[in-house]
Amino acid sequence: MGSVLRGKPVLRVLSLTLRLSTEGSSRAAAQRRCFLPGLCAGLAPLAASSRRFCTSMARNGGGPLFRQLFESESSTYTYLLADAETKEAVVIDPVLETIERDLKLISELGLDLKVAVNTHCHADHITSTGLMKKRLVGLRSAISKFSGATADIHLSEGDTIPFGKHCLTVRETPGHTDGCMTLVLEDQSMAFTGDTLLIRGCGRTDFQQGSPERLYESIHQKIFTLPDHCFVYPAHDYLGQTVSTVGEERKFNPRLTKNLQEFVNIMNNLNLRHPAKIDIAVPANLVCGVHEV
Amino acid sequence: MGSVLRGKPVLRVLSLTLRLSTEGSSRAAAQRRCFLPGLCAGLAPLAASSRRFCTSMARNGGGPLFRQLFESESSTYTYLLADAETKEAVVIDPVLETIERDLKLISELGLDLKVAVNTHCHADHITSTGLMKKRLVGLRSAISKFSGATADIHLSEGDTIPFGKHCLTVRETPGHTDGCMTLVLEDQSMAFTGDTLLIRGCGRTDFQQGSPERLYESIHQKIFTLPDHCFVYPAHDYLGQTVSTVGEERKFNPRLTKNLQEFVNIMNNLNLRHPAKIDIAVPANLVCGVHEV
Repeated sequence: MGSVLRGKPVLRVLSLTLRLSTEGSSRAAAQRRCFLPGLCAGLAPLAASSRRFCTSMARNGGGPLFRQLFESESSTYTYLLADAETKEAVVIDPVLETIERDLKLISELGLDLKVAVNTHCHADHITSTGLMKKRLVGLRSAISKFSGATADIHLSEGDTIPFGKHCLTVRETPGHTDGCMTLVLEDQSMAFTGDTLLIRGCGRTDFQQGSPERLYESIHQKIFTLPDHCFVYPAHDYLGQTVSTVGEERKFNPRLTKNLQEFVNIMNNLNLRHPAKIDIAVPANLVCGVHEV
Repeated sequence: MGSVLRGKPVLRVLSLTLRLSTEGSSRAAAQRRCFLPGLCAGLAPLAASSRRFCTSMARNGGGPLFRQLFESESSTYTYLLADAETKEAVVIDPVLETIERDLKLISELGLDLKVAVNTHCHADHITSTGLMKKRLVGLRSAISKFSGATADIHLSEGDTIPFGKHCLTVRETPGHTDGCMTLVLEDQSMAFTGDTLLIRGCGRTDFQQGSPERLYESIHQKIFTLPDHCFVYPAHDYLGQTVSTVGEERKFNPRLTKNLQEFVNIMNNLNLRHPAKIDIAVPANLVCGVHEV
């Protein structure tokens, strides 16, 4: 377990004006179109309490509802977060094959799903975002403005996705694709790293604008600067692992503990198979997964 | 999401004398052989805070380290819990196929694994308990005294497994097998239900002393009497679900919301295949999984 090397926690992103752009890239435009403004204001600096060991935590007023769900064909994790009182909810990386399971759970828990966000344009599975929008009135899709994909909301660095009193903040982490993002909970206790950082691994960089240099920089500058106790929830795991922490990955990730040149050499010599579904999944995901549905 | 119907929380088990028998069934003998006595004394009654929505929580002084791990061939969940300060740890239902992954994580986190406990004598996979004992000096195995299996520690109702300032308390929940147990964290925030209660399901009752009547009684008397917000962590899930709550299962479990007769009819007509590994797994698990290893 990595020790808590907190020093000066990176609160740069959190101190940015809270905003979520609905289109384009203009900060001013984004501010004008502020999505439920003010709900995430007044974020407290990180507490120094020892809370690095549990997968989520109750803070003053209660932590969010949190569920991790798995789709076994593509080994994808879907995450559901909600405000315990208002029931406003966000789903991260929902998968077409498991839409019925996910919608049933959302209904049973009485959640009001506001946003379905994809951490990037996936190549290994089709998102259920488009179909979910057809099934849930008012649901909005969100993805990085650099993904090239259509969505109701195009996100960029520092944008926030509020749900009740909670929110996720966008950190752009390109490298696996240009539009990869890491979504960080308001108190930096949880980071949803998509395919950027996996548990003891990372996303491949051999297709879809992949760049090992950019991936290395993204992880070191945008994820490894989070507190050591911050939980890392990736988009995939292939070994039955469910969660890690920033401290653990800084210390034990066999690729990211290497220097840049060694990392680039590793990534350029993985010789992985092309994803089986890439020619179906990428075009579908560029339009929210609504592809001959 | 079930509401929090707390009323008078069931603290009966927690108020029992803390003990853990190492052999036989004598309460007096068990008390004499008390395993790390006193470490779980002074348990506070359940706080009324709204904390039913996160998968674990920090209480005063910090919650335990908690990791959920998955073995995909048998769809088994292994759980690792540890005291954040002392690093004393317990593993629940470790699987032979994933022993290297689990030992590596235990080593990386710097944990001192004290007990490997099986919720019952599994029929679908071989436990790694015996092999773990060979690899980790001082590790003790634990299982129900009604399992028929050999182990260092034989557990019965009310026994506790302390790890640092935390402990798990045994609730006997027979029905899937005679020796099935549910392990409950000291503040009743988490219950490890083995094959007794699954997420929106339950263990089968058609072999190994299976009894739908006993299973129904166990779940209603020993699990559904826990607080609604208590997280349910089963030994298996086949749909990619990772956790539920007592409140949810009371409300939404399609089998357990039926009356006893309807439940028995359902269970007696499942027509499931015999577990592929039962003839290998059960004899192996009766001796801690050390079976021609």
